[in-house]
Amino acid sequence: MKVVTFGEIMLRLAPFGNLRFFQESALEATFGGGEANVAVSLSFFGYDAAFVTKVPDNAIGQAAISELRKHGVNTTYIAKGGDRLGIYYLEKGMSVRASNVIYDRANSSISKASEKDFNWHQIFDNVNWFHFTGITPALSDDLANILILALKIAKEKGIKVSCDLNYRKKLWSTEKAKKVMSKLMQYVDVLIANEEDAEKVFGIKAKNADISKGKIERESFVDVAKQLVEKFNFEAVAISLRESISASLNNWGGMLYVKDKAYFSKTHNINILDRVGGGDSFCAGLIYGLNEFKDYQEVIEFAAAASALKQTIEGDFNLTTVDEVKTLIKTDGSGRIQR
Amino acid sequence: MKVVTFGEIMLRLAPFGNLRFFQESALEATFGGGEANVAVSLSFFGYDAAFVTKVPDNAIGQAAISELRKHGVNTTYIAKGGDRLGIYYLEKGMSVRASNVIYDRANSSISKASEKDFNWHQIFDNVNWFHFTGITPALSDDLANILILALKIAKEKGIKVSCDLNYRKKLWSTEKAKKVMSKLMQYVDVLIANEEDAEKVFGIKAKNADISKGKIERESFVDVAKQLVEKFNFEAVAISLRESISASLNNWGGMLYVKDKAYFSKTHNINILDRVGGGDSFCAGLIYGLNEFKDYQEVIEFAAAASALKQTIEGDFNLTTVDEVKTLIKTDGSGRIQR
Amino acid sequence: MKVVTFGEIMLRLAPFGNLRFFQESALEATFGGGEANVAVSLSFFGYDAAFVTKVPDNAIGQAAISELRKHGVNTTYIAKGGDRLGIYYLEKGMSVRASNVIYDRANSSISKASEKDFNWHQIFDNVNWFHFTGITPALSDDLANILILALKIAKEKGIKVSCDLNYRKKLWSTEKAKKVMSKLMQYVDVLIANEEDAEKVFGIKAKNADISKGKIERESFVDVAKQLVEKFNFEAVAISLRESISASLNNWGGMLYVKDKAYFSKTHNINILDRVGGGDSFCAGLIYGLNEFKDYQEVIEFAAAASALKQTIEGDFNLTTVDEVKTLIKTDGSGRIQR
Amino acid sequence: MKVVTFGEIMLRLAPFGNLRFFQESALEATFGGGEANVAVSLSFFGYDAAFVTKVPDNAIGQAAISELRKHGVNTTYIAKGGDRLGIYYLEKGMSVRASNVIYDRANSSISKASEKDFNWHQIFDNVNWFHFTGITPALSDDLANILILALKIAKEKGIKVSCDLNYRKKLWSTEKAKKVMSKLMQYVDVLIANEEDAEKVFGIKAKNADISKGKIERESFVDVAKQLVEKFNFEAVAISLRESISASLNNWGGMLYVKDKAYFSKTHNINILDRVGGGDSFCAGLIYGLNEFKDYQEVIEFAAAASALKQTIEGDFNLTTVDEVKTLIKTDGSGRIQR
Amino acid sequence: MKVVTFGEIMLRLAPFGNLRFFQESALEATFGGGEANVAVSLSFFGYDAAFVTKVPDNAIGQAAISELRKHGVNTTYIAKGGDRLGIYYLEKGMSVRASNVIYDRANSSISKASEKDFNWHQIFDNVNWFHFTGITPALSDDLANILILALKIAKEKGIKVSCDLNYRKKLWSTEKAKKVMSKLMQYVDVLIANEEDAEKVFGIKAKNADISKGKIERESFVDVAKQLVEKFNFEAVAISLRESISASLNNWGGMLYVKDKAYFSKTHNINILDRVGGGDSFCAGLIYGLNEFKDYQEVIEFAAAASALKQTIEGDFNLTTVDEVKTLIKTDGSGRIQR
Amino acid sequence: MKVVTFGEIMLRLAPFGNLRFFQESALEATFGGGEANVAVSLSFFGYDAAFVTKVPDNAIGQAAISELRKHGVNTTYIAKGGDRLGIYYLEKGMSVRASNVIYDRANSSISKASEKDFNWHQIFDNVNWFHFTGITPALSDDLANILILALKIAKEKGIKVSCDLNYRKKLWSTEKAKKVMSKLMQYVDVLIANEEDAEKVFGIKAKNADISKGKIERESFVDVAKQLVEKFNFEAVAISLRESISASLNNWGGMLYVKDKAYFSKTHNINILDRVGGGDSFCAGLIYGLNEFKDYQEVIEFAAAASALKQTIEGDFNLTTVDEVKTLIKTDGSGRIQR
Repeated sequence: MKVVTFGEIMLRLAPFGNLRFFQESALEATFGGGEANVAVSLSFFGYDAAFVTKVPDNAIGQAAISELRKHGVNTTYIAKGGDRLGIYYLEKGMSVRASNVIYDRANSSISKASEKDFNWHQIFDNVNWFHFTGITPALSDDLANILILALKIAKEKGIKVSCDLNYRKKLWSTEKAKKVMSKLMQYVDVLIANEEDAEKVFGIKAKNADISKGKIERESFVDVAKQLVEKFNFEAVAISLRESISASLNNWGGMLYVKDKAYFSKTHNINILDRVGGGDSFCAGLIYGLNEFKDYQEVIEFAAAASALKQTIEGDFNLTTVDEVKTLIKTDGSGRIQR
Repeated sequence: MKVVTFGEIMLRLAPFGNLRFFQESALEATFGGGEANVAVSLSFFGYDAAFVTKVPDNAIGQAAISELRKHGVNTTYIAKGGDRLGIYYLEKGMSVRASNVIYDRANSSISKASEKDFNWHQIFDNVNWFHFTGITPALSDDLANILILALKIAKEKGIKVSCDLNYRKKLWSTEKAKKVMSKLMQYVDVLIANEEDAEKVFGIKAKNADISKGKIERESFVDVAKQLVEKFNFEAVAISLRESISASLNNWGGMLYVKDKAYFSKTHNINILDRVGGGDSFCAGLIYGLNEFKDYQEVIEFAAAASALKQTIEGDFNLTTVDEVKTLIKTDGSGRIQR
Repeated sequence: MKVVTFGEIMLRLAPFGNLRFFQESALEATFGGGEANVAVSLSFFGYDAAFVTKVPDNAIGQAAISELRKHGVNTTYIAKGGDRLGIYYLEKGMSVRASNVIYDRANSSISKASEKDFNWHQIFDNVNWFHFTGITPALSDDLANILILALKIAKEKGIKVSCDLNYRKKLWSTEKAKKVMSKLMQYVDVLIANEEDAEKVFGIKAKNADISKGKIERESFVDVAKQLVEKFNFEAVAISLRESISASLNNWGGMLYVKDKAYFSKTHNINILDRVGGGDSFCAGLIYGLNEFKDYQEVIEFAAAASALKQTIEGDFNLTTVDEVKTLIKTDGSGRIQR
Repeated sequence: MKVVTFGEIMLRLAPFGNLRFFQESALEATFGGGEANVAVSLSFFGYDAAFVTKVPDNAIGQAAISELRKHGVNTTYIAKGGDRLGIYYLEKGMSVRASNVIYDRANSSISKASEKDFNWHQIFDNVNWFHFTGITPALSDDLANILILALKIAKEKGIKVSCDLNYRKKLWSTEKAKKVMSKLMQYVDVLIANEEDAEKVFGIKAKNADISKGKIERESFVDVAKQLVEKFNFEAVAISLRESISASLNNWGGMLYVKDKAYFSKTHNINILDRVGGGDSFCAGLIYGLNEFKDYQEVIEFAAAASALKQTIEGDFNLTTVDEVKTLIKTDGSGRIQR
Repeated sequence: MKVVTFGEIMLRLAPFGNLRFFQESALEATFGGGEANVAVSLSFFGYDAAFVTKVPDNAIGQAAISELRKHGVNTTYIAKGGDRLGIYYLEKGMSVRASNVIYDRANSSISKASEKDFNWHQIFDNVNWFHFTGITPALSDDLANILILALKIAKEKGIKVSCDLNYRKKLWSTEKAKKVMSKLMQYVDVLIANEEDAEKVFGIKAKNADISKGKIERESFVDVAKQLVEKFNFEAVAISLRESISASLNNWGGMLYVKDKAYFSKTHNINILDRVGGGDSFCAGLIYGLNEFKDYQEVIEFAAAASALKQTIEGDFNLTTVDEVKTLIKTDGSGRIQR
Repeated sequence: MKVVTFGEIMLRLAPFGNLRFFQESALEATFGGGEANVAVSLSFFGYDAAFVTKVPDNAIGQAAISELRKHGVNTTYIAKGGDRLGIYYLEKGMSVRASNVIYDRANSSISKASEKDFNWHQIFDNVNWFHFTGITPALSDDLANILILALKIAKEKGIKVSCDLNYRKKLWSTEKAKKVMSKLMQYVDVLIANEEDAEKVFGIKAKNADISKGKIERESFVDVAKQLVEKFNFEAVAISLRESISASLNNWGGMLYVKDKAYFSKTHNINILDRVGGGDSFCAGLIYGLNEFKDYQEVIEFAAAASALKQTIEGDFNLTTVDEVKTLIKTDGSGRIQR
């Protein structure tokens, strides 16, 4: 399987452990970003995954490339130029204290990229799947146009397309998001969202939210998925489901709605080490599952388990193999040592 | 609001993470102490907070001052001289393993301070609130006398006074504590204590402790507060309430007794990162609350939430803003990322 | 009390905290191994504990010796020579992610040791107790023979012998284990095992495992112990009982079967910092308990509490004193600070 | 003495020790910038030093303020707002390998500051000295204009002004630098430069550079200073003199030209720990010297020794007291332990 | 340019900084080995470099691959299997204290590799250069035979071959080395050695070593090279020249003997950060130089400067670009900051 | 050889690398002190070395014992009790910046020890050599008296005694030092001093210090030694000779004066990593040399080389074997890797 993802990779600067910002002078400097995270996870699953972006032609841009390369991602199509790599600062919360993210991503090389930076015909050669998120078109109008171009070529070549809505309020308004994203949806086969994105981007809420509490939540997610399918004619819609008990303890699972039917994964009770990238690893698990398993229940279990594992791993990347995901599904998370 | 606190600041030496003492050769060296912790927390809340103490005139004393200065505390009135900064060694426990503290604070500069080290008329210029704990008078007789002098001047100037009982059995006997603290109580407007201090220092227990288990605890704390008010005529009494399930997991809250009525905060279930300074941040939250909110329920919720946050932060200091405390109260600790 | 243990000590290489293998370049390098861990724990309990092994005559072998010496273990009888110290790589899991162990222990100095490396008459001079595990005879046939020799001399000298079954499937087959271990059992007074060892090594399962779920587990462990005693005529059999809820959360306890009666310890709910060496610290606690307490309930409580504490401590070694174990038993793990 | 400096403070991200960029994932995150460095050094010398800038209203901007505050700098006049704190990445070279700096400072809060962010009449109240560098006007045209405004008010108030030319080719062309800086020079009393700045900014070279090699260098620096004084009517010109033998070993000194006479300091042979901020600490030493010593030789010795010490200290800031500088001058760098 | 190197890659475990073995518990875990080091350096120079070896199919083997991949090395032809990755422990000396290396490389996967692990026809497709060292055939007889097979195919395909003698006394005797290496020399075009290798492996010493001291050393190296060329008909012989003043300070350069003429590089005075891999980076520089420059003086200057830079970089790998090497040659190591 | 040393061991707290005090929050916590350092070094040389002191009965005292035990020192005779372990803070200087030491050793357990804490008859059983320094009697009058008692018993038992003058001006005046030390000298066989101690303690200066510069220094040291021998009838006097070029670069050697003849060692040019403990390792080298070598030149070369090595090792302890010292003497510090 050959997969391509397209978006931004940022330098991620985080205090070690659960320290507050600048409580000590050392920062953990890694790299991440929605579509890059998906590419790394799929590479760990054994896929031929390429990540397309633009980075500055300096040691920071090179370090981002090297890190992707380390994890087996094809970096051949990454353009070089522009002024800077975007940055995000992450303070990992704990218990009653929430995590904090500060973005410093304006004027990044990718946000200033132009059409000629990417040769999509070459990039999509022999490719089976293309994935992007709602962050990419939010970075600049040029990028939104480049994305449309890419999507058209993808569809011409019969490539399956998935999109993670991933609404970021600091990048654009809900109005602009709705306008731009609506245009892109025609090229999308599989839509992925978290509990809130569909409402924020498309204004889609569960229709009858006043029924008895017992089944309300599950029902409402199914209803949202149904509306999305009706409106945009998706093959499948998947929603990740997070219940935050505290910054350290989450219940986590997912739903896949396909062929008029909803499949819910088991709920994982996770002690969180690093929740960033949880949604991205859910996307990667879903893409893998849809391509490898016939049983949709198996698909959503794989996506949920993969992304549960991610949240016990430091950094944006889900450094997890297919075997490890399957073991979790089998053992139910009992965590016995593998000697 | 201008606040002054008076007491000892110590060098705090702790193994990193949950290591045992000297399991590895690196120690985390920070600074802390009851009254200094209150000053830092109030500075984070936006108050003009001065801390008064005496430190040796060397690099260690200077580092303590610099650290306070970093957090915005006014260090102008800190005297310099004497032989040493007190030290405490902290081993952070975990789960079934309790934390350990070893004190090496004898002969510290502050414990040997004399009256002429502090010009209280100048220190208290335009000040609204003065806070101390039961540790300060326990350090030396001279310090107890200096404190009485300070308290007299404070009352002359109409400054509100709060005191955290903070009984330390390694510093003095319950007899001596009772004798000295009883003398000081006439100057105190707001008394703060934990579950055990009132009995240890003043021998005050809940009167009818043999009623049915169900409501016993809440009732007994109210009764203790009532007795304290009756005996010393305090405006308010606050008690922090800690239920230790393990060294990693505590239930935490507080009670404020004022104008013949008791207000209990919500109980926070906390995963503990560092519980030292929990009581001090409760005091700071209370002082802030009493000065800012009219609703006493709001006051005790603020104090409890502020000190819950502290226990998820490394070090003695509560590096938390008013906004963060209010967010916790609103979101009930669900710990969603702040992007 | 003079105790001797005999086996392998390995270099243990682990990523810091909960990082995956080689996620960062730093590794925590410590030392450990079943019998060495027992010796260290007994030294912390105040016993005169000697560890017998063979290490290479280089800086790595010397570091292993120095580390044991640091913890008070008698290293006088450690032979020097051979090619290498065995290594194990440990990745500490968390929550739904299991821990991983990779062994690189082939051709270690101890696995190539010969009879003349150890003078058992001298080693056992004035010794009261000898302990080994099923790992030692699994390392090589020579070592199994050396062990038989040692056991014979131990019995001649009236030394009590304990054995922890500790089956390792990567070292030998169940067939070979059964054959070799059966020969050794005649010298053993106290047998220790975890929930699975007895079945794997001796094929001993609970006889009637189909009774109602409620009491089944406890009953079945008692039945296994009874069968072991019947077959090998042990004085006592102890079984450690671990229920893995996740890699971070375990329920932990133990059973002691002696004089036809079973004693179950309280169950400890542990947040795991490092579970490696849990079984070894259970053995050490048991050896200490059997020698110090008359009440068998007290014995198993001590063993269970000691090994619960271990799992909150980094590294293989249980750096815990008798006082700390007793405090845990008394306070029920509430984890109050020891000031 | 009250001093004000005005300019940019940046987040400085550097690999630990002598590692290459991103060779390991940890970065040392500190803060620095020409004028901030001068303020910190003067604060260590006991002066009342204020630093004026604009930082974003987030945790990164606050950390910059806290760090300055820690070192005693007055941060009252720092404006808050704008989008980001500038960043520079530093790779510390060693021996034959040069250091590398990557700037990511575009669109910083200070570069976008406007006139109304600073109330110079208030800032300059009771101030004796104002210092800036050629970096500040290079950041934006607005900033150059703000600087002219500040300089006018400074001169009205009789404040002495010093300027460090500090030409940065990545910020502006030599043409623009010449045009802007020439306008500013009328307000400057003391000009400071390194060996190359005068030529790059003003095109001033030594007049007769073809005399015999022996004295050529000293003579040529004197000649450059003389021309600067003639052209701009400075009270004094100081030049720092660095001879790079390797990235680890430099010879370092300075020259002060005042009242038609040149004073050269002793040359210090320095093992370099961190050379960034060397020039800034030279400025601070010079400002201190000119205000405290009558003997100009003493002034330049102080400036040279202070900045030699800086280069043995990690980070941009010269954490050195007057006593330490004087001890170096007296002991000639023999480095005996101070017990 | 496509280059292939073939040999062992090991896990390298080193105490941080200049600590002695196990002085602290943290170890820096990186990867390295003669031929891998050459491949990484050539990849940094922009060549398409593949490294061929065999690693165990576990997390340690994978980490070695990932690290090579990070640096752009083609790892497609690395076989997986066998038991373990070889290890070397490195203690970096300083000043009068020498560095120490302890090898634990026996029974590594590569030393047990068999012919079928490598498809040389495929590996050598379109390749221009093949490099190996004397370590590879020393690891096992099978490996020596595999190497002969590879060399034959290389010569058939017209690939240039270079060999670094790299004699290791712990791997084989001088007799065996001579026997095996002599057989391989017929396939070698360019031989590289340090000052001692030629004598140890082939018994070749300078012929008239008793002439006047002044020129003796240079002459004797030329003479050794001449003899090597005469005996084995090499196109070129290069010798790295190290003068150890202390573990921290070395003089370093090289000689290239080609077409009957010797070219000596400038001598670099290096402060050593990590000298391991110095010889390998010399090989890589030489290979690059011979392929890129016509002037042989330029070739040897490049090789010497490249390997001088390596010794200021932590780890086995020379993380240095062509531009950096050229800058060093131009600037003569003065170490000015690159802003 | 059985050796006993007697004195204080302190907790040593130092910033990592060359950081200034409290520049970062981590401190390196190790242990050291003159006589403890000698014991550790002799243990590394293969001697049976016991260290006698008193430490508090808490985790800090125990850690000091464990650290000594790790290095093979006999800790059987260490008394437990008293209030605290002394502390010294060390800031390692570099280049022109000197190191700093801050002592916080008052009221340590050893300074408050009493006669009954030590059973000298038992301690000295079968002992060959006893060593102390001038620090021990300076700590308290009681300790001076205990030392006299120990010395008397030592002489009764025919034990050789060495003393390192080690004058510390912060512990006592030169007057008191002279008075106390003069009394002790009658028991001393071998006196060791640095360049300044003899003058400070006994007022002994070189007699004719105005001869021509060339030989003056060597001659003057010989003269001082001669006077010491004449006055106190020592068997031998040794003086360590340090020339501080900077905090990073020292010339180091020693002189031994015995049987009316002076032996000077070679001078070592040392890059300093950690100079603390240099004098103590010189003492240990001397004690070893006097017991093992007949040639006095060999003795002083050993002492000088051993202590040169120490200064390249972090911490107070000289972690160096006899082989390593001999290799340095043979290879002249060229620092070749030991593979």
